[in-house]
Amino acid sequence: MIDAQKLRQDFPILHQLVNDEPLIYLDNAATTQKPEAVLAKLAAYYHQDNANVHRGVHTLAERATQSYEGAREKVRAFINAKETAEILFTRGTTTSLNWIARSFGDKFVKAGDEIVISYMEHHSNIIPWQQLAQQKNAKLVYIDITPEGYLDLADAKRKIGPKTKIVAIAHVSNVLGGINPVEELITLAHENDAVMVIDGAQAAPHMKVDVQQLNVDFYAFSGHKMCGPTGIGVLYGKRKWLDQMEPVEFGGEMIDFVNLYDSTWKELPWKFEAGTPNIAGGIGLGAAVDYLSAIGMDEIHDYEQSLVDYVMPKLKAIEGVTVYGPQDPKDHTGVIAFNIDGLHPHDVATALDMEGVAVRAGHHCAQPLLKYMNVPATARASFYFYNTKKDADRLIDAIHKTKEFFQHGTI
Amino acid sequence: MIDAQKLRQDFPILHQLVNDEPLIYLDNAATTQKPEAVLAKLAAYYHQDNANVHRGVHTLAERATQSYEGAREKVRAFINAKETAEILFTRGTTTSLNWIARSFGDKFVKAGDEIVISYMEHHSNIIPWQQLAQQKNAKLVYIDITPEGYLDLADAKRKIGPKTKIVAIAHVSNVLGGINPVEELITLAHENDAVMVIDGAQAAPHMKVDVQQLNVDFYAFSGHKMCGPTGIGVLYGKRKWLDQMEPVEFGGEMIDFVNLYDSTWKELPWKFEAGTPNIAGGIGLGAAVDYLSAIGMDEIHDYEQSLVDYVMPKLKAIEGVTVYGPQDPKDHTGVIAFNIDGLHPHDVATALDMEGVAVRAGHHCAQPLLKYMNVPATARASFYFYNTKKDADRLIDAIHKTKEFFQHGTI
Repeated sequence: MIDAQKLRQDFPILHQLVNDEPLIYLDNAATTQKPEAVLAKLAAYYHQDNANVHRGVHTLAERATQSYEGAREKVRAFINAKETAEILFTRGTTTSLNWIARSFGDKFVKAGDEIVISYMEHHSNIIPWQQLAQQKNAKLVYIDITPEGYLDLADAKRKIGPKTKIVAIAHVSNVLGGINPVEELITLAHENDAVMVIDGAQAAPHMKVDVQQLNVDFYAFSGHKMCGPTGIGVLYGKRKWLDQMEPVEFGGEMIDFVNLYDSTWKELPWKFEAGTPNIAGGIGLGAAVDYLSAIGMDEIHDYEQSLVDYVMPKLKAIEGVTVYGPQDPKDHTGVIAFNIDGLHPHDVATALDMEGVAVRAGHHCAQPLLKYMNVPATARASFYFYNTKKDADRLIDAIHKTKEFFQHGTI
Repeated sequence: MIDAQKLRQDFPILHQLVNDEPLIYLDNAATTQKPEAVLAKLAAYYHQDNANVHRGVHTLAERATQSYEGAREKVRAFINAKETAEILFTRGTTTSLNWIARSFGDKFVKAGDEIVISYMEHHSNIIPWQQLAQQKNAKLVYIDITPEGYLDLADAKRKIGPKTKIVAIAHVSNVLGGINPVEELITLAHENDAVMVIDGAQAAPHMKVDVQQLNVDFYAFSGHKMCGPTGIGVLYGKRKWLDQMEPVEFGGEMIDFVNLYDSTWKELPWKFEAGTPNIAGGIGLGAAVDYLSAIGMDEIHDYEQSLVDYVMPKLKAIEGVTVYGPQDPKDHTGVIAFNIDGLHPHDVATALDMEGVAVRAGHHCAQPLLKYMNVPATARASFYFYNTKKDADRLIDAIHKTKEFFQHGTI
């Protein structure tokens, strides 16, 4: 089992006071903190090797290229893609999903086709498909959610059919924290000759993902949610699709020949990577992958579930607290959405912050889900492997204090 | 005048041996090195404030948001934009130019319209326009270059006319280093009701840019070429255009309301910034702007010209060396393209690297320019404010040694 207390030493940011209280960082679904190993790698790159990649023959350029392409290989191994040609570096999950909608959508989606998503998607896995559907006169179809907060597989079987071209689903809900049955959805999609897109932003950082075993067509995730730098993300795509797709951005590095009125593209993955990439970001993500892999993704998943197992009953036992979504730790990552009766979640988050506890409040970029649940907003605590049971206790304590403060005007 | 020897102390990377020789970094047109002030700011962000921006009410999120939006204000002041709403953070110049072609182009360019560029553009300021012209059945028109390597203003007057919708020109050529007459081009464009797009990747890092004084419609540049981190760039656009344009990427942070089948956008600049931005990148760019501003952009420009003034005659005096492009230091930034008779520029760059001198070789992402000049490839030395006359001497020495090596097989 993970020794979170020890791992916390790798994260100096966690050892600070916020409003005179020790910081308890429970906003990991928004972004995670970065271990010293990642920050040291970034600093070493800028202090020793910084140069533009691919086009240079001088020593620094070769070192930078090796590190950057080495990071791509680390990411390939991390999700067990067949080849590095299938690993595109992007700005983040949002860009990754937009690229699929733009490039695969432009080429393969036709009027009358159906794009199937669910009510629990993040805006980044909704709006690109809305845009595609509008442009192509295709139909956007939503899979229901069960009253318990699970994706409704029975409804998925009704909604995914011969007209379906794309099924795009979050591996893990960024609000409810529930793990979706992506294996069954992939099978359903493929039985109907549709491609399966997984928004893995809340999954890849928290559990072992094997894209070959899943047999998924596209898988998107972000570096900054998995101990990596901001501004870097990944789009995994099967070569058979990427080979047929057109680049989304055009410029240097992605071309073979530029004539006056047309151009030809480089081979994968560079065909998609126009311009100077986020070199330091890619290298930092590689270091994050090394760090997470050394801990073990299965270990991280098990540990987060043990935290949920610990905190969920305590949270539910507080009078006036409502927890949303699946509540069995086995279907859960460390994301827990909740509300306190009579209090706006923004006030809850502000009050918790006074206790040093950082949680998020709002619609969590999932307005359709909140409308579906008929909840205007929630608070959200999201745990990672460096959180401890003590952090969970501090959250529970702070919620009690928050209730008292709003009931009696004092803490 | 700048004390480059002193400023070099801010760049530890410069103080290393490459192939047993002190590194002379002359590849600044590809990417620049980062001063300690920028690296310290990145480290401080990740060590103290790292959190996702805009949506959070907790302390770290507020600090991160203030720093990130504070960086936007620094960038606004740096180019004297009217308001921060006109400063979009992008992945870099390439993304900035693609966004204009995609978003402005989609909305305003029609069949038969003309898009005017020049033969000296970087691929990132060619291929997006090729794509747009193909999609819209518009016409791509190239402005000639004079035999001296200047953009041909007389030809510009012939090519820019009533059919012109967009004029897109590099402020400074990334191969020839010449400063283009953008004021005249902007006037020409506006007289013909066309918008003016400037690729400022090689200008904003090297001279004072005032977008209001220029009265330019769009101005694009990259952080990593001006002492900032990789993965961050800027698109300046006049509000009157940005207000009418649709976002290019869709997702979290850029919306007001997400309904099931359509959505509405946030106000500028966030309308264009879907998903978690490159927060650390933006903050690092803000620190780079502070650093450059403290030195003074006019001082940097003057100093680079004094270096060119120093090295250009020495370079041209070497038998068998051809220098391309404008040769009057007054029209020049620190970018100098050259070849040595009988030697492939890749071999030149490799040989110079053996002497510790880092230059680039190839087509410099400007294949149409090299075809126009009838040169397959060139070597390119590009200076920045931390380079010294001694660096220039080392380049000249190393070129002599390279010639000897290839003539006699020994150095």
